[in-house]
Amino acid sequence: MSHKLRIGIIGAGRIGKVHAKTFSTLVPAATVEAVADTNPTAARELAEQYGIPVVYDDHKKLLANAAIDAVVICTPTEFHADMIVDAANAGKHVFCEKPLAFSLDAIDNALAAVKRSGVTFLMGFNRRHDVGHTRIRRDVIAGRIGNPELCHIISRDPSPPTAEYIRTSGGIYVDMMIHDFDLSRYLLNDEPEEVFATGACLIEPEFAKYNDVDTAMVTIRFRNGAICSIDNSRRAIYGYDQRVEVMGSKGRLSTFNMLEDNTQFAGPDGFQEPRALNFFMERYIPAFQTEGIHFADCLLHGATPNCTGEDGRAAVVMAKAADLSAKTGRLVKISEIG
Amino acid sequence: MSHKLRIGIIGAGRIGKVHAKTFSTLVPAATVEAVADTNPTAARELAEQYGIPVVYDDHKKLLANAAIDAVVICTPTEFHADMIVDAANAGKHVFCEKPLAFSLDAIDNALAAVKRSGVTFLMGFNRRHDVGHTRIRRDVIAGRIGNPELCHIISRDPSPPTAEYIRTSGGIYVDMMIHDFDLSRYLLNDEPEEVFATGACLIEPEFAKYNDVDTAMVTIRFRNGAICSIDNSRRAIYGYDQRVEVMGSKGRLSTFNMLEDNTQFAGPDGFQEPRALNFFMERYIPAFQTEGIHFADCLLHGATPNCTGEDGRAAVVMAKAADLSAKTGRLVKISEIG
Amino acid sequence: MSHKLRIGIIGAGRIGKVHAKTFSTLVPAATVEAVADTNPTAARELAEQYGIPVVYDDHKKLLANAAIDAVVICTPTEFHADMIVDAANAGKHVFCEKPLAFSLDAIDNALAAVKRSGVTFLMGFNRRHDVGHTRIRRDVIAGRIGNPELCHIISRDPSPPTAEYIRTSGGIYVDMMIHDFDLSRYLLNDEPEEVFATGACLIEPEFAKYNDVDTAMVTIRFRNGAICSIDNSRRAIYGYDQRVEVMGSKGRLSTFNMLEDNTQFAGPDGFQEPRALNFFMERYIPAFQTEGIHFADCLLHGATPNCTGEDGRAAVVMAKAADLSAKTGRLVKISEIG
Amino acid sequence: MSHKLRIGIIGAGRIGKVHAKTFSTLVPAATVEAVADTNPTAARELAEQYGIPVVYDDHKKLLANAAIDAVVICTPTEFHADMIVDAANAGKHVFCEKPLAFSLDAIDNALAAVKRSGVTFLMGFNRRHDVGHTRIRRDVIAGRIGNPELCHIISRDPSPPTAEYIRTSGGIYVDMMIHDFDLSRYLLNDEPEEVFATGACLIEPEFAKYNDVDTAMVTIRFRNGAICSIDNSRRAIYGYDQRVEVMGSKGRLSTFNMLEDNTQFAGPDGFQEPRALNFFMERYIPAFQTEGIHFADCLLHGATPNCTGEDGRAAVVMAKAADLSAKTGRLVKISEIG
Repeated sequence: MSHKLRIGIIGAGRIGKVHAKTFSTLVPAATVEAVADTNPTAARELAEQYGIPVVYDDHKKLLANAAIDAVVICTPTEFHADMIVDAANAGKHVFCEKPLAFSLDAIDNALAAVKRSGVTFLMGFNRRHDVGHTRIRRDVIAGRIGNPELCHIISRDPSPPTAEYIRTSGGIYVDMMIHDFDLSRYLLNDEPEEVFATGACLIEPEFAKYNDVDTAMVTIRFRNGAICSIDNSRRAIYGYDQRVEVMGSKGRLSTFNMLEDNTQFAGPDGFQEPRALNFFMERYIPAFQTEGIHFADCLLHGATPNCTGEDGRAAVVMAKAADLSAKTGRLVKISEIG
Repeated sequence: MSHKLRIGIIGAGRIGKVHAKTFSTLVPAATVEAVADTNPTAARELAEQYGIPVVYDDHKKLLANAAIDAVVICTPTEFHADMIVDAANAGKHVFCEKPLAFSLDAIDNALAAVKRSGVTFLMGFNRRHDVGHTRIRRDVIAGRIGNPELCHIISRDPSPPTAEYIRTSGGIYVDMMIHDFDLSRYLLNDEPEEVFATGACLIEPEFAKYNDVDTAMVTIRFRNGAICSIDNSRRAIYGYDQRVEVMGSKGRLSTFNMLEDNTQFAGPDGFQEPRALNFFMERYIPAFQTEGIHFADCLLHGATPNCTGEDGRAAVVMAKAADLSAKTGRLVKISEIG
Repeated sequence: MSHKLRIGIIGAGRIGKVHAKTFSTLVPAATVEAVADTNPTAARELAEQYGIPVVYDDHKKLLANAAIDAVVICTPTEFHADMIVDAANAGKHVFCEKPLAFSLDAIDNALAAVKRSGVTFLMGFNRRHDVGHTRIRRDVIAGRIGNPELCHIISRDPSPPTAEYIRTSGGIYVDMMIHDFDLSRYLLNDEPEEVFATGACLIEPEFAKYNDVDTAMVTIRFRNGAICSIDNSRRAIYGYDQRVEVMGSKGRLSTFNMLEDNTQFAGPDGFQEPRALNFFMERYIPAFQTEGIHFADCLLHGATPNCTGEDGRAAVVMAKAADLSAKTGRLVKISEIG
Repeated sequence: MSHKLRIGIIGAGRIGKVHAKTFSTLVPAATVEAVADTNPTAARELAEQYGIPVVYDDHKKLLANAAIDAVVICTPTEFHADMIVDAANAGKHVFCEKPLAFSLDAIDNALAAVKRSGVTFLMGFNRRHDVGHTRIRRDVIAGRIGNPELCHIISRDPSPPTAEYIRTSGGIYVDMMIHDFDLSRYLLNDEPEEVFATGACLIEPEFAKYNDVDTAMVTIRFRNGAICSIDNSRRAIYGYDQRVEVMGSKGRLSTFNMLEDNTQFAGPDGFQEPRALNFFMERYIPAFQTEGIHFADCLLHGATPNCTGEDGRAAVVMAKAADLSAKTGRLVKISEIG
């Protein structure tokens, strides 16, 4: 491979912008060589912003560019699986955004193509690369808290997406909570056995039209006994709320929210600190950077991807179990899904 | 009624000691006139410690003492209902510790006796009297956080009780989580509709012999939409973990743990603060005091009990719903229980 | 001595009320038998509030009461020394509020009378009895932070006293910072060598009429090398600000302010916690209680007073050094004062 | 000027590395074109690390390079003034590290050369660019805390430099506290009038050989009345301690330390958070980036430097006043120095 990792970005939307910025400015070992989007204006604007030399209106054209080593798939979920297959067949290494795909068949098909081709695959769960999460996982594995018993993951967006976004999102479990399902396996270093889910449309009644909810609470039982609660909300007026805690026989590990700055104001009404960092583009910049550097390390220095296609599949299975539980009002076994 | 409220304590065990101390030293408007326990040594020792003039070996003898205005029932749960009936029939006002009783029939019978006799009844959920909980409820009712959407209640004891205690405790939901069931109704000012519960024996395998668990996670759906998670553990190595949070459309209210003191040590390994206050006898002293003062206010100045027999019954119903859910693995409607 | 310590309160003003309440309700081993004040209405009202049986309009009458074991001197500073002499001569044990007196001659005279009479003397620096301060001193002495190098004491009242109070207060150093001078010796377990002080009238220009300031900053060099900064303000709009920190070769110990409750509100403007406890009557209730119990322990069980007349004198010497420094703009040696 | 700002780094030591990294990787509008150091190995290594194309062994050769727009002066303090003159005469814009110089004559000479030549000059006090400090200054100017009355600046390095470094550093006031002197003017938006300083050699007795101290406490009176305390230590075992607070008539603004991550461990000994970020290279990365972007903005888009040569001079004057105060034990007027 060339001295620098040559990246092609597929999809110039919100998350495509995040990765274009990351690989252009925060990963010294990589350069972004091309961006493809079926909306040529979006692709062009992104290319201009980060000095990306080539623009395509079709991901297949990008895949045909021999000067590209690897692609970052940032399109809507429905296209992920086919694009992974296309990329693998073109011999390009793949970094795919979450969720891997909506159907397990599509996922299995895509992962088989990756396997056949021998390309490197990194599943894009950025929160695994957060310094706090990484430290907790390391400490859990090292036994610092003994046997994990209780886990809480709280993830609340600052404001809800549009109903249009919701229409094709696949629902809160596979679109939003997918991060937390992956994080629960990552933090506990354990596999889920049973899932219970319940949700409600409390913020945007319109989401109910698409059989979706905007507020959800899930309980997961893990093989080694730990019980994990995940709550998701599409709106937290105080900013992006991102907290985890794992309690075990010997202690508890947890994270605090990251705030806009480190100041405090003391006035007649008490002590005030600023809002939480507004959203993932602010809160997880360092995690995206670490993730990008990790992808480059995998390809340039033989590091092992810390988030695999199987991890991506496992999170989708959990989301499907949650969906079935929410519909039936009962505990659903992971083994019922696949 | 006499100038000071004259209290009789029934039951000289752990919680009897708490109330004997509270009414003897922290409630200026009350005096403790007698204590009854079938174990006369326990009663005598408690009487000596707080200068209580009269000791009985039978609660009926205490109830026959005309110089007593009100009783605090601190016996094991199985005796609560009958003693309430006895006290009501004797014309004594009643403050009864949690849980009200194990069976709804017994509860209904006891509350009917209270009603017939016209005595005042205060249900003893001490956490309602905590200054933080009180402030959150007041703010929720005042609309400070808009419509409540998500709620978390975490309650973890510092160390597990004996297996002997567990044998007659009624199980974690009615013995321990009963506090949190009540607190969820109190904080959200709303009624539960459905309950899902799951638990595990992760700390003391012996508890399983009595069909009990030491770790439990419950999800409750409330009428107005809020979803509440409660977790309980019989052991938190860092001290009594007592946290609540309520998130709504306009904000979030939460409490921090109270620590042993307000110091911090900064050393080579970072910043360290002391343990959480060890258990309820330390953490909730001010709440027990406020509760005692409230009971005196009800009887001396006509205040309305802020925790009624119906509140006590509602928490038992929630505990029974949780128990059924844990056994069946499904969401249980409150209306299924009673 | 009788089973219970029989206390007489001299002075029914603000601090007299604090000690009357403390010894009446928070020190089980003591009873308040009498209160004396030249303002009989004040004495009578205080007596009624706490059920104190006897009221005097002259401290000498109180001292003549054989049923009193010990007095708590709560009068204005100008009367302290003479009253200590009177009490000692009457064979009453003495607990004297800060500051000991304005002049060193008066102090030496009073302490000589105490010595001659053999009564027990406790100097009333309540902050020594704060659980946080006590823990820091214990840890400093145990070597937890190695050699103390830097110390900060911040003490800010919520709102300024009246100009009338200031007129006879003796000035900020001897009236207010006296607490912090004592605390610096207590926390560092070391003796001061040199003092630099500077102050300004920033809040109440009227205080300047009495040659006083409302804002002051003092630097103290201790024998073993530590340098300590004390700041005082007569007004902190967010409540009584009480913080200390001691940094040494092996770490740093510090305290946080105590807030009105343990809640947090998260809203559109960020995270808010309540005001600091408003003033010493709220913030130091537990310290006053511990101090009262300590005084009873000294007299009933032979404990050694943890704050002596010499400690009271040392703080006044520091205040005088500060005053001289503020007037001359130079570092003043403790040995220049006495 | 060319589209991108072309930077030359003069001095390849510790701070030269920081700026080489900043301008190479964190300031998109700038490129580093050359580095000069009398130690050619140091220059070459730095050039290699960041892909800097040209290396010089003499700053004058760098100044002769017409492809360079501006220089960042990162040499030892003794060379600053002459290099500013050389750069100004060569028509290069100048960003000079702190302190400006040791002597006021040299400073005045250098600033005159800057003025004559018309080049842009930015004084390098990186802490002005910290987001917390910037917010506090903005709020102070906006009147959020009313009239500033008390200010604390605490700055403690994690571990002492070598005695060799101390030998030519100019002493703690001009080498280390210079940052805090500038910060006091920046935060309070006010000018100092009088300074008192005291220090001690508590960490490294060897520093005393060079008439330096490792621990210092300074008090500054400002024109508008505020009193500011600065403490500096060459060693804080818990990491780089960087805190400020400003208290005024309407409130208090302060900063917290930034820690290694946002995790907490709760165990048998209490609650633990990680160390403070170790030193300025970690703690102030974002401030150095903002500073670099600001320098580029000044040159590319006409922004006004937010830290001038006069600011650099004012801090040196304060350092000299502190030095004189420490030697004489008296309050020194700023007007005595210059």
